[in-house]
Amino acid sequence: MLVVMKKDSNQQAIDRVCDLIRARGFAPHVMPGAVRIAIGVTGNQGFVEIENLESVDGVMEVIHVTSPHKLVSRDVHPEDTIVDVRGVPIGGKEIVVMAGPCAVESREQVMHIAREVKRLGARMLRGGAFKPRTSPYAFQGLKKQGLEFLAEAREETGLPIVTEVKDTDNLELVAEYADLLQIGARNMQNFTLLEEVGKLRKPVLLKRGMSATIKELLLAAEYIMSQGNYQVILCERGIRTFEDSTRNTLDLNAVPVMKALSHLPVVVDPSHGIGLWSKVTPMARASVAAGADALIIEVHHEPQKALSDGAQSLTPKSFALLMRDVRRIAAAVDRTVASGE
Amino acid sequence: MLVVMKKDSNQQAIDRVCDLIRARGFAPHVMPGAVRIAIGVTGNQGFVEIENLESVDGVMEVIHVTSPHKLVSRDVHPEDTIVDVRGVPIGGKEIVVMAGPCAVESREQVMHIAREVKRLGARMLRGGAFKPRTSPYAFQGLKKQGLEFLAEAREETGLPIVTEVKDTDNLELVAEYADLLQIGARNMQNFTLLEEVGKLRKPVLLKRGMSATIKELLLAAEYIMSQGNYQVILCERGIRTFEDSTRNTLDLNAVPVMKALSHLPVVVDPSHGIGLWSKVTPMARASVAAGADALIIEVHHEPQKALSDGAQSLTPKSFALLMRDVRRIAAAVDRTVASGE
Amino acid sequence: MLVVMKKDSNQQAIDRVCDLIRARGFAPHVMPGAVRIAIGVTGNQGFVEIENLESVDGVMEVIHVTSPHKLVSRDVHPEDTIVDVRGVPIGGKEIVVMAGPCAVESREQVMHIAREVKRLGARMLRGGAFKPRTSPYAFQGLKKQGLEFLAEAREETGLPIVTEVKDTDNLELVAEYADLLQIGARNMQNFTLLEEVGKLRKPVLLKRGMSATIKELLLAAEYIMSQGNYQVILCERGIRTFEDSTRNTLDLNAVPVMKALSHLPVVVDPSHGIGLWSKVTPMARASVAAGADALIIEVHHEPQKALSDGAQSLTPKSFALLMRDVRRIAAAVDRTVASGE
Amino acid sequence: MLVVMKKDSNQQAIDRVCDLIRARGFAPHVMPGAVRIAIGVTGNQGFVEIENLESVDGVMEVIHVTSPHKLVSRDVHPEDTIVDVRGVPIGGKEIVVMAGPCAVESREQVMHIAREVKRLGARMLRGGAFKPRTSPYAFQGLKKQGLEFLAEAREETGLPIVTEVKDTDNLELVAEYADLLQIGARNMQNFTLLEEVGKLRKPVLLKRGMSATIKELLLAAEYIMSQGNYQVILCERGIRTFEDSTRNTLDLNAVPVMKALSHLPVVVDPSHGIGLWSKVTPMARASVAAGADALIIEVHHEPQKALSDGAQSLTPKSFALLMRDVRRIAAAVDRTVASGE
Repeated sequence: MLVVMKKDSNQQAIDRVCDLIRARGFAPHVMPGAVRIAIGVTGNQGFVEIENLESVDGVMEVIHVTSPHKLVSRDVHPEDTIVDVRGVPIGGKEIVVMAGPCAVESREQVMHIAREVKRLGARMLRGGAFKPRTSPYAFQGLKKQGLEFLAEAREETGLPIVTEVKDTDNLELVAEYADLLQIGARNMQNFTLLEEVGKLRKPVLLKRGMSATIKELLLAAEYIMSQGNYQVILCERGIRTFEDSTRNTLDLNAVPVMKALSHLPVVVDPSHGIGLWSKVTPMARASVAAGADALIIEVHHEPQKALSDGAQSLTPKSFALLMRDVRRIAAAVDRTVASGE
Repeated sequence: MLVVMKKDSNQQAIDRVCDLIRARGFAPHVMPGAVRIAIGVTGNQGFVEIENLESVDGVMEVIHVTSPHKLVSRDVHPEDTIVDVRGVPIGGKEIVVMAGPCAVESREQVMHIAREVKRLGARMLRGGAFKPRTSPYAFQGLKKQGLEFLAEAREETGLPIVTEVKDTDNLELVAEYADLLQIGARNMQNFTLLEEVGKLRKPVLLKRGMSATIKELLLAAEYIMSQGNYQVILCERGIRTFEDSTRNTLDLNAVPVMKALSHLPVVVDPSHGIGLWSKVTPMARASVAAGADALIIEVHHEPQKALSDGAQSLTPKSFALLMRDVRRIAAAVDRTVASGE
Repeated sequence: MLVVMKKDSNQQAIDRVCDLIRARGFAPHVMPGAVRIAIGVTGNQGFVEIENLESVDGVMEVIHVTSPHKLVSRDVHPEDTIVDVRGVPIGGKEIVVMAGPCAVESREQVMHIAREVKRLGARMLRGGAFKPRTSPYAFQGLKKQGLEFLAEAREETGLPIVTEVKDTDNLELVAEYADLLQIGARNMQNFTLLEEVGKLRKPVLLKRGMSATIKELLLAAEYIMSQGNYQVILCERGIRTFEDSTRNTLDLNAVPVMKALSHLPVVVDPSHGIGLWSKVTPMARASVAAGADALIIEVHHEPQKALSDGAQSLTPKSFALLMRDVRRIAAAVDRTVASGE
Repeated sequence: MLVVMKKDSNQQAIDRVCDLIRARGFAPHVMPGAVRIAIGVTGNQGFVEIENLESVDGVMEVIHVTSPHKLVSRDVHPEDTIVDVRGVPIGGKEIVVMAGPCAVESREQVMHIAREVKRLGARMLRGGAFKPRTSPYAFQGLKKQGLEFLAEAREETGLPIVTEVKDTDNLELVAEYADLLQIGARNMQNFTLLEEVGKLRKPVLLKRGMSATIKELLLAAEYIMSQGNYQVILCERGIRTFEDSTRNTLDLNAVPVMKALSHLPVVVDPSHGIGLWSKVTPMARASVAAGADALIIEVHHEPQKALSDGAQSLTPKSFALLMRDVRRIAAAVDRTVASGE
């Protein structure tokens, strides 16, 4: 259920509605929009009725939502959500490029790459400290030390950090360092982790599971938002299909579909989406042309020595060309990209 | 096997090499390039050896190709192939937009739509006269009469025609009218049809099967080329995956992958690729940004009355916006699109 | 639409109803059942009304069918259909095993294998004379000569022949030799071929396309039946998924689903379904346990020398073990398998 | 790396080898077999060399394993592993049927169903107390209270309990009650949970992720085993494909493939695998015919009132027929099933 407030409704009116909702054992979610405020109601199973709600002061309309996703839905929140990540707005006119290594491997490595991507126009630094790996015998990341190296790189370059949290055990630690918490594809339906992240008040980058439908991704975002954390960014990173000449099948259809169904920003990860470094740039261009709000790109100064995902990492030199191309496409869709130095 | 001729080799030398190849029971394919001529050898099973071929006059190099696709391969023919469809070059700097109804439904319908798409910048007219349909009880097309209506529209507008041939029985008839013969997704591995089309000297638009890998699409093109018809255009039109909020999953990864593996032009069909008219334009933009040489778009002036695929057809008004957007993206990748009237 | 006739309705009554249907431009299909006769009506687009049909002599009930598949549907024909292939009934209590080489390679090869599989209990001989191959450079079959070798093997062993027809051009020729015409997976939606096969009065084995849904397979069968050929056998042979340790994913779910939706017999091809000879026998057992009416198995006396599909072919020795196992499972589901010599 | 010990090697020799392995920073895994003991070495990245190991007393052979899965592999442990779950052996001659409701809904419900399935021959009781659900607004289980009801049912019936653990936070609690810890499909690559479960000494039922390859499932089992918990049971429960007439596509190919690659027992879940209660029995038959060691079946006495998965739950009456059928198939593959009362 969704309660739409009148344009001029004041805080008192909002509080009263929230109290009524709580009195029935449900949870109110105040969602401010550009023009008016809506209050989402969750916690119910099926249809809800709160008598006389429509006659309460300040209430304009009560909408019964049948869709399984509510808070995530554009019906509920027609304007685009802009998520602010330590001063970098995601979801607005400017397309944000996040770049960095797959995994943090050493202090020198991350500092070097951070400087390079900053110089070329990236607005955020990516890098994994806790790495989920298919084999128990593969490199699992530098863990806490990796986070410290990232923080050091942030201090020098000013770039906010996006890094993955792979379990609730390390959530507190990772959240201390990260500006944008990444939930990886394999954890998209780790509902406990989603709920814990939902209790924080920190932006979340939620990656689509490799066999998750768009509706399931939206419901995973709903898990986070139902706990009160509305700063969620959806990430298309390729799905698993029968095609075997690419690592994944980047589903760019998902970009306009998600932008239509949801108000949340959409980021695309063409590095994982195709898995072949020489084809990351055309897919980055295509992502922006399809309507992506941001890109997340793997960059490594020595891809052949990378401890993971070397085959899909761009060198700084190739990344410069990507940035040039992406700027041109952004302009063609009336958007901008940071210019670098 | 591939025989690369010296730059200055004359026709006599070429003929001699071809004769030697034929003498061993194989088929020579003379493939002129910008700089030099290569002669592909097919008909062998596995490794071939023709003694002393390297010492024949005019021969620069003999390359043993291990890849199952030969004629289709960029190794064999490094320059982009440009297919000329009745004066419209596909595969060059200009991006060609083909547009029209899914099915030809009446003389008035096709004439009206042809005029509209021509006015808005389309360079070719699409329209189905023989329609393969999943149910035997669905509309199967106007058949010969449909072809005649298309020809009439061509006469008035000057737009070359692309239309589907769905079996060998009607191939002669369809080939009489079509400027570009379309092989549909369901026929991508109808090898008899591929071979028959390969015996013609007419451009072919080969659509990817809905569960075909990129390699299988290239091998299907190889079937056509192995018969001597080198004017093949590859078409990405979406693959079948578990995602059910779109009709298909448009695999734009396939664009840079196919452009790297093959010298053939690549066209994208975003109408079938997403199946939702309101999202065709962003996917058309993404296709061009990914490197497509052409687009094929379903347009209908009354989509709600269309006998097939109404849900994915653009009105002329929406098509105008698509053309505007596609022109801007084309410019951003240093290409052009016809300006319309 | 479906017209159900009274139990005691005579030929005259049936003819009268058919005439009325034809008079409206539709096609009647007389379908005899164990208890009563039903007449299917096809050729309509959407809802049909033939006035006063219910008051015609002999008519018990007129049922408006909304499902896209009609003739194929168990609603229309509740009893199991038994297809008679030159004296071998498929769809009854006895489970029929068809066996033989993937491709006919020589007279000796096919004679040898035919004798072996006959001896071990196979009731039909399989073997391809026209082979659809992904690459134009792979072995394409012995064609007419292959058919002649098959006929010779039939003459000696008495085993009816199942062999593939891959295009309409060779349909007449193949139909002359084959007792059961196989439509391969790649041709499941070659609608022209389906219609031509539908005009014959010869049993058809219709293989599921590698990315076809069960509903699409049933609609493909409907194409054949809508032309008047009701002797169709459905074949599950594996679908294409992301799993890459097997050639295909054998979808045994399809067996009970198809048996519930349709009255047609179901055969399973575990050889293609898993693609690994050492695992064909457990999958053959599972097929029978799931409710399959027949099996089609690739057998080759020298798999390592086979021109195609050697990796999935059983030797006669392994086939003997398969037959023993299948007999035991058949007994456990109250069915039988021929005992061999 | 794998160290195979001589037949007569004593504990001292084994300890010495383990010490040498630990001295190099690797982890030894002592794996007793029927004839001899092998010691797996993990913790290395790539090739390992421990000098002179082959000359140590008691060592028969040192095998360098290149496969990414080691402990899970049949190469390393040729005999079938039998996992003992509170006295019920899984992986031996007897096929074990686990049955019960999808979710524990009340004391009465679970007691009633437990008595019924016990009476009909089930050897273990299944039931979810912590339910991972796609929507945050769906029923999430009775949690601790659900575990208590399960324990009470075990006390009365003697049936060991299998129940899901969905996060590390509740692992200790769930492990206190469960006899067999289930890792659900969505958690198959929740590596933190796998490692924590690996530190316990309790049997684990590991479900295949809905888009996981067989190799990935084996690597997930390897995660558990690499921590020292060797009591892992692999579970095929259907994969996600394009087919939409069933909930999942049950991949029975996986049964013989996994039995060949690994020594671990394999259980099949036909309830989730097809998702249609009326077709669970044929798929249960097929599972046993394909070689499954156990089945896990959803049973509910009032499926239409079930809070989750009602559509795929059998009534006790249908379950009785399933048991009868499964017993017959088991006998046909020389195995047994408990007879019930």
